[in-house]
Amino acid sequence: MYAHPSKVVLALVLALLAASRASAQETLRPRVEAWTAANQKAIVGEFLDLLAIPNVAADRVNIDRNAVFLKSMLEKRGFKAELLPTDGNPLVFGERLVQGATTTVLIYCQFDGQPVNPKGWAQENPFTPVLRAGRHDEGARDIADARGQTRYENDWRVYARSASDAKGPIVAFMAALDALAAHGLAPTVNLRVIMDGEEEISSPNLVPAIEKYREKLKADLMLVFDGPMHFTDQPTLVFGARGIQTAQLTVFGPKSGVHSGNYGNWMPNPALRLAHLLSSMKDDQGNILVEGFHDDLVPMTREERDLIAAVPNEDTRLLKVFGVAKPERDDVSLQMAFQKPTLNIRGMQSSFIGNDARTIIPDRAVAELDIRLVKETNGARMLERLRAHIVKHGYHIVDADPDDATRARYTHIAKLTSPRRAATAAFRTSPLLPESRRVITALETIWGEPPVRIRTAGGTVPISQFIEALGFPAILVPVVNFDNNQHEENENLRLGNLFRGVVTYAGVLRMR
Amino acid sequence: MYAHPSKVVLALVLALLAASRASAQETLRPRVEAWTAANQKAIVGEFLDLLAIPNVAADRVNIDRNAVFLKSMLEKRGFKAELLPTDGNPLVFGERLVQGATTTVLIYCQFDGQPVNPKGWAQENPFTPVLRAGRHDEGARDIADARGQTRYENDWRVYARSASDAKGPIVAFMAALDALAAHGLAPTVNLRVIMDGEEEISSPNLVPAIEKYREKLKADLMLVFDGPMHFTDQPTLVFGARGIQTAQLTVFGPKSGVHSGNYGNWMPNPALRLAHLLSSMKDDQGNILVEGFHDDLVPMTREERDLIAAVPNEDTRLLKVFGVAKPERDDVSLQMAFQKPTLNIRGMQSSFIGNDARTIIPDRAVAELDIRLVKETNGARMLERLRAHIVKHGYHIVDADPDDATRARYTHIAKLTSPRRAATAAFRTSPLLPESRRVITALETIWGEPPVRIRTAGGTVPISQFIEALGFPAILVPVVNFDNNQHEENENLRLGNLFRGVVTYAGVLRMR
Repeated sequence: MYAHPSKVVLALVLALLAASRASAQETLRPRVEAWTAANQKAIVGEFLDLLAIPNVAADRVNIDRNAVFLKSMLEKRGFKAELLPTDGNPLVFGERLVQGATTTVLIYCQFDGQPVNPKGWAQENPFTPVLRAGRHDEGARDIADARGQTRYENDWRVYARSASDAKGPIVAFMAALDALAAHGLAPTVNLRVIMDGEEEISSPNLVPAIEKYREKLKADLMLVFDGPMHFTDQPTLVFGARGIQTAQLTVFGPKSGVHSGNYGNWMPNPALRLAHLLSSMKDDQGNILVEGFHDDLVPMTREERDLIAAVPNEDTRLLKVFGVAKPERDDVSLQMAFQKPTLNIRGMQSSFIGNDARTIIPDRAVAELDIRLVKETNGARMLERLRAHIVKHGYHIVDADPDDATRARYTHIAKLTSPRRAATAAFRTSPLLPESRRVITALETIWGEPPVRIRTAGGTVPISQFIEALGFPAILVPVVNFDNNQHEENENLRLGNLFRGVVTYAGVLRMR
Repeated sequence: MYAHPSKVVLALVLALLAASRASAQETLRPRVEAWTAANQKAIVGEFLDLLAIPNVAADRVNIDRNAVFLKSMLEKRGFKAELLPTDGNPLVFGERLVQGATTTVLIYCQFDGQPVNPKGWAQENPFTPVLRAGRHDEGARDIADARGQTRYENDWRVYARSASDAKGPIVAFMAALDALAAHGLAPTVNLRVIMDGEEEISSPNLVPAIEKYREKLKADLMLVFDGPMHFTDQPTLVFGARGIQTAQLTVFGPKSGVHSGNYGNWMPNPALRLAHLLSSMKDDQGNILVEGFHDDLVPMTREERDLIAAVPNEDTRLLKVFGVAKPERDDVSLQMAFQKPTLNIRGMQSSFIGNDARTIIPDRAVAELDIRLVKETNGARMLERLRAHIVKHGYHIVDADPDDATRARYTHIAKLTSPRRAATAAFRTSPLLPESRRVITALETIWGEPPVRIRTAGGTVPISQFIEALGFPAILVPVVNFDNNQHEENENLRLGNLFRGVVTYAGVLRMR
């Protein structure tokens, strides 16, 4: 028996069509990779151009130059772009609608960088990018003609402020659009882009911009093109970040430092008292002892626990890198550690050490504390618990240095202050939402394996407030190397991460 | 019945002689006071001349100028004087033998001063003395013509480096010799004088000088003309001083500071660990918990306890001055506090505070410790006990920053170091010795009341080593005001203390 020829043809055509659609996705990666390989010089060139414009948020003249340059970058890729004025630096906005698309994605990028101290850098000027054949601190040589290479190796690195945080992701994003266009492909979603020139100063004008530019910022999903990939350098999605609440704790001793001989064994020492107070807050095994500190947490579901367990565990390697024999708690992995609020001493001082040390009983001892928050914990509430703990331990709490009457009345006096804007909320998007699943699938499709899915990053992103205020899901899609010296001297981007970032973003832009 | 006339005459003569000897002592004070009042201008003039020669130990040119000036001051008072070369600054030595005297007293003076930071002073140059009509910080006016006053008030003060520490006592000592001479009186003891130009750098060449100048330094008793009087400004004798042993304790965290978000709840925090370790050494009630810390102490006798109890208790006033509601322990007076070794945190630091604070888990936390010693406690032995305590609390102790192998092996790593010459021994002379009783009686005789007798001063004098090496009793005879800003900016001497110092030293020089 054989089938009617027309039926055979129809089946054949249908099969070919299905194959072509499947293969369109399956073949996207090699096509983007091929395009990227063929256009390395142009990609790197645009990257170097962008890095050469200084971008410290306080330097308005150069911030404006960045904004104008970014606007033209967007316009080259078919965006309707404009600068949105704010009370601070302008936001760069772009919109590219796609015929037939039913989903709108708001893409967040950051174009300002941390302040620089050129003395700490191996190069003369952090805004004159340097191409190196590897890691500077491993002795990699400089490559003199950064723009003129015929081939750029994956292990080469570009050193400049904002190379990774976050001009690199912007350039990978633009190249992804170019790669798609070169193969006659448009994004599958409507794109809105918001570029922030004040991220490193905590984006004070981002939430206010929602009120002002409400219609422009509407979307179904926000993707944040920022942050480092997982330690393993595997494709990564980050669904949340911890918030932060800082506070300064001061314990008072005598009005001024007194001679440790003339008053030793008699005058209370505020450094010792601070040591006792801090010890009472967290034991030496890593257990936070402040009452109610974990009260707001809700138990994780099985699915959430599985998600965390699926993140490659690099703890042993990290301990080695940092030269630490054991973590704070044997029974808590790094990923699990991120799911709870912290209580950390980020700085501590009483009088001076080393050559500046004097034989005194100091007048005060200060601890700078930071509480990393998770979505369920509120900064102000955590501070109240800390305050209650200090009171419970016998301290009278003041808001300013104590006066004579207060000093005469209370044996234990502490000051607990928290500067304005000391708090940033956490955010968390469920990886189980349909929007989340689409982004996960997009990465899985283009890379052939599921991405590392991080429920909560340990650190804090200032745009959490913006995410919360917008009210729709947000996911971070990081592409830069973990070891990029973000915020420090000798910030860099590994070119392999830039090129693979083009693939990642192309995949995301073609999400189904 | 009446007595034979010759017996009457003899009795009369004997009575007159006895009366004259008693009255010689009883009238010494008014005579010295009268002479001092009449010679204020000369005394102050010589004081201003001496203060005008800069005297930082490292400034050899000016140190030599001081030495030459002091030598001539001694020669004017009948001393055979010379400069004794050492490996550092010269010592000024003088000898004045008294016919018939059977006791030799070695008088120790200090002529170098603490380094100065002129910016901190209210006057232009700390070596251009300024006379003020009271305390500068209470708004006292400057007195323009410091040398030309017809009368110098007791509450006036001379502001200059070393005014109190310790050129003032030298000038009072010289004036006392002049006052005695003016009344035809010589000292009752042979005098040897040693003047040290390196006290503020811990007198490194003083003990070696004993070997070199053994014969010159022989005496029955050493009197140290240095230090502040008791808070009450009553005539004071000090029979001992605590020693000191310093140490630096470092607790290690990760090799370099890590992001407090990216590693919080997982990376051990060295500041917290240091807080726990310090807390384990001393409780919040002032009890030192280091095993064996008090083992070497011997119980005080009833007489010693009575001596301490007899010192005027100014604790309440001091607490008010320093703005502290209660001392470390309710049951220990300041004087009793001096009788035991201390364990003090004189400085503490981990990363930075204030504007320099960063949101990290620091790489290390450092505490500068000082242990004030009493005569029975040995610095090295106390350090060993501290070391044992740290080990007992789970730490591996290193002498230098740990290498990778050490970091991989030990969860808790601490460094305990003590610089060379970090220790100075304590000294104590029994107030019950005959030599001590003679000095006590000398002060009681001239002032009409017993001096404040301090068994052990809380602070440390570098010459303890010298005292111990010499091997004969030593007593401090302070004359300067307690509130003299010693070692600080705006050091000063109250003129009343200078003038009363002449009386005190005259009394001592006429000891029986």
